[in-house]
Amino acid sequence: MLARPALYTDYYELTMAQGYYLAGRKDEQACFDYFFRDIPFEGGYVIFAGLSNLLNTLEHFEYHEDELAYLSKEGFRDDFLEYLRNFKLDVDIHAAKEGEVIFPRTPILRVEGSIIETQILETLLLNILNFESLIATKAARMKYAAGDHKVLDFGLRRAQGLGGIQASKAAIIGGVEATSNVYSSFVHNTPASGTMAHSWIQSFDDELTAFRKYAEYYPENCILLVDTYDTLASGVPNAITVAKELEEQGYKMKGIRLDSGDLAYFSRKARRQLDEAGLEYVKIAVSNQLDERLIKSLLSQKAPIDLFGVGTRLVTGHESPALDGVYKLSAIEDEPKLKISENIEKNTLPGRKKVLRYSSNDGTFYGDGILLKNEQDADTIFHPFYPAKHADVTTYNAEPLLQPVMENGDIQIELPSPSQSAAYAQKRLAKLNPEHKRFENPHIYKVGISQKLMDLRDELTKNIK
Amino acid sequence: MLARPALYTDYYELTMAQGYYLAGRKDEQACFDYFFRDIPFEGGYVIFAGLSNLLNTLEHFEYHEDELAYLSKEGFRDDFLEYLRNFKLDVDIHAAKEGEVIFPRTPILRVEGSIIETQILETLLLNILNFESLIATKAARMKYAAGDHKVLDFGLRRAQGLGGIQASKAAIIGGVEATSNVYSSFVHNTPASGTMAHSWIQSFDDELTAFRKYAEYYPENCILLVDTYDTLASGVPNAITVAKELEEQGYKMKGIRLDSGDLAYFSRKARRQLDEAGLEYVKIAVSNQLDERLIKSLLSQKAPIDLFGVGTRLVTGHESPALDGVYKLSAIEDEPKLKISENIEKNTLPGRKKVLRYSSNDGTFYGDGILLKNEQDADTIFHPFYPAKHADVTTYNAEPLLQPVMENGDIQIELPSPSQSAAYAQKRLAKLNPEHKRFENPHIYKVGISQKLMDLRDELTKNIK
Repeated sequence: MLARPALYTDYYELTMAQGYYLAGRKDEQACFDYFFRDIPFEGGYVIFAGLSNLLNTLEHFEYHEDELAYLSKEGFRDDFLEYLRNFKLDVDIHAAKEGEVIFPRTPILRVEGSIIETQILETLLLNILNFESLIATKAARMKYAAGDHKVLDFGLRRAQGLGGIQASKAAIIGGVEATSNVYSSFVHNTPASGTMAHSWIQSFDDELTAFRKYAEYYPENCILLVDTYDTLASGVPNAITVAKELEEQGYKMKGIRLDSGDLAYFSRKARRQLDEAGLEYVKIAVSNQLDERLIKSLLSQKAPIDLFGVGTRLVTGHESPALDGVYKLSAIEDEPKLKISENIEKNTLPGRKKVLRYSSNDGTFYGDGILLKNEQDADTIFHPFYPAKHADVTTYNAEPLLQPVMENGDIQIELPSPSQSAAYAQKRLAKLNPEHKRFENPHIYKVGISQKLMDLRDELTKNIK
Repeated sequence: MLARPALYTDYYELTMAQGYYLAGRKDEQACFDYFFRDIPFEGGYVIFAGLSNLLNTLEHFEYHEDELAYLSKEGFRDDFLEYLRNFKLDVDIHAAKEGEVIFPRTPILRVEGSIIETQILETLLLNILNFESLIATKAARMKYAAGDHKVLDFGLRRAQGLGGIQASKAAIIGGVEATSNVYSSFVHNTPASGTMAHSWIQSFDDELTAFRKYAEYYPENCILLVDTYDTLASGVPNAITVAKELEEQGYKMKGIRLDSGDLAYFSRKARRQLDEAGLEYVKIAVSNQLDERLIKSLLSQKAPIDLFGVGTRLVTGHESPALDGVYKLSAIEDEPKLKISENIEKNTLPGRKKVLRYSSNDGTFYGDGILLKNEQDADTIFHPFYPAKHADVTTYNAEPLLQPVMENGDIQIELPSPSQSAAYAQKRLAKLNPEHKRFENPHIYKVGISQKLMDLRDELTKNIK
């Protein structure tokens, strides 16, 4: 968490804030929605993450003297800086739960408060929610591919700077079992793991000595890296020697790790060598530029792999390194607002809204409905751009997706731990049909708007034109 | 900079460190090299960044009591934790200058010290140097495409969490003129900029009022966002009205900004409207998913654009979200070490080494030579894997690329500011032939090894086999 978040913002949030202040509008009430438009990884869903971090950060949002001095040097006015000196966030936030399965255009977080405070937290909010949701989603895909096999995060060395701290936490929320990232484990109380690098083996005169020494110090947590010199001619045979020596001392070696070469080929060969030595219990871990598609491919080849270590492609998002979440003004006081665009898909939805998730009686998610906040329920939801496409939702159970999480700047919920959010994510993913989870052309989940919201939007659009 | 970096590491660095401690090897001297293998963005060079951050972070590296308590709970031994309690980094580091133009396999940073300290800082070092160099490189490419036009960083909202702080600084080193990231500007003393978002305009009853209010508060720094409703029918005409009103008060409006639609088309139309109103001095800024290729394309279409705002594709690296830099053991005491691999290109170079940059008399870079540290110079450099490819370097001027930057854990140089490193990067890029800078199939820069280094490597490889 950022200790001093007030300046963690885009410059224009501050020029606009000063503008609202000078216009005498500082106490006007505004409402903003957070939502995203495109699902990353050509996937079918996103896992919502970053909420606890966001709320914690907002709760101690204040301007320090050195920050105000910086803004003064930048030319901001004394009266506005005096206003910031006494500034305290007083916002109300409604949001989906951390770990929720979410979909494009659904406003899964709503911020209400003065126009200055709602504006000034935009960049901070987007930065946290976009990134943590991105990585939780990537992790969920990898875990989905791995099934009952464990997935471990090894990504810190290739993570985008300090973002690595959040990446490792978000990966846990998405379903990864443990991380190599000690800092993240320390701060977020998540499981950490790791054994040895090639340098350990190189630093000894020979591989067998390096293995023996490691086994001597870590007899109960011994995973030997077998590809420093020659995997099948030396690495695995030396590991077998050490495993047998451990057996004599009453220990069982945990595993070996392969970090190069064709992992399907080497895991099969290594498995056979281990099994022939009576070491069926020794597990095989693999790493090296893995992602969900490679994990799926390895398992479909029946590669005898027990643990997948993933790095760069988890913690950076790889082919989709950003979630395109946006934060859009939907009302000033009681007046609904919208933005229209050259690109009709970028038009926003006006007014204070709520989200209902429709499920069938067996609990399976059917679709999400976006309604005006004061609507009770809707019978029909309409495709946001092609109203001829619509769906009757009267036979489904409706569940409100947003809950109050912050009131007058104070957190209203007990913030879940990453492992609690991970459990929630898995529970919710279990209610999502597999067609939405597959990697190739996933079925598009229904997100619709109510008749009243559609009418309001169309009316406002007409008046602007 | 990370205030408490000691746990910012992979778990296995600590298990190995405890292993070295238990093996009685804690005072053995080791040497590690930092280098990368593949140039990101299918480019021809990388800009080295992150050195100042790394050195600053290392200088206050220590273990705090709560961190030791965490490690104790994780099962680390009391005697080892007592060792960590008194731990102070005592390393020597040689490195290229921040902002240097660097190439694959050249060991541009060398760490020497006890095996524990050199090992334990691996992850921290890789995390910082890989990411900051990645973004400095992306920024340099964008600036190269933009030529004399300004490039501004707007990326924080889509940056990878807290990595955004480093991204905005690295972007300055790479050549970007200013950032929207206030936090990074505050911490790194780099130029910040920004004016308004769509929400400013939506929050007023009409666009013209919104523009007038902004101009009233910021008459000298007025850049109006013209695409909230209809760029050519309302945005630009309203901006012209306000520019004329500003003229009457003795001000000149700075510019307009386009954030959607076809930027070539709209910039040309907007330019004509502005010029016909006698507002040739009003600049046109554009943004919306830009990168170096789009900037180049817009300028080759002669789009009349003055400023390019870049975001996601700058601060995440987009198509290449990680630099693959590694940190490899090259010696224990005086014994050179190497790692061989199934993939010959991943074999490492043994021994303590230095790097010479060869330039022709006009200053143009010719190639880099990797030599053993105690070699004076080389007459010939050899391709690392295909020794039949070699080059005579006797007619070139040789410049040592590494300088001592840390001795016994103390910083030895005056750390450059981001803008000083940016100036150095541009100076060095000017010495690089344009064929290495082009975006399509850039010419590969020569990096070779000396005869003695090659002999040492081949001898060690033979002994391992």
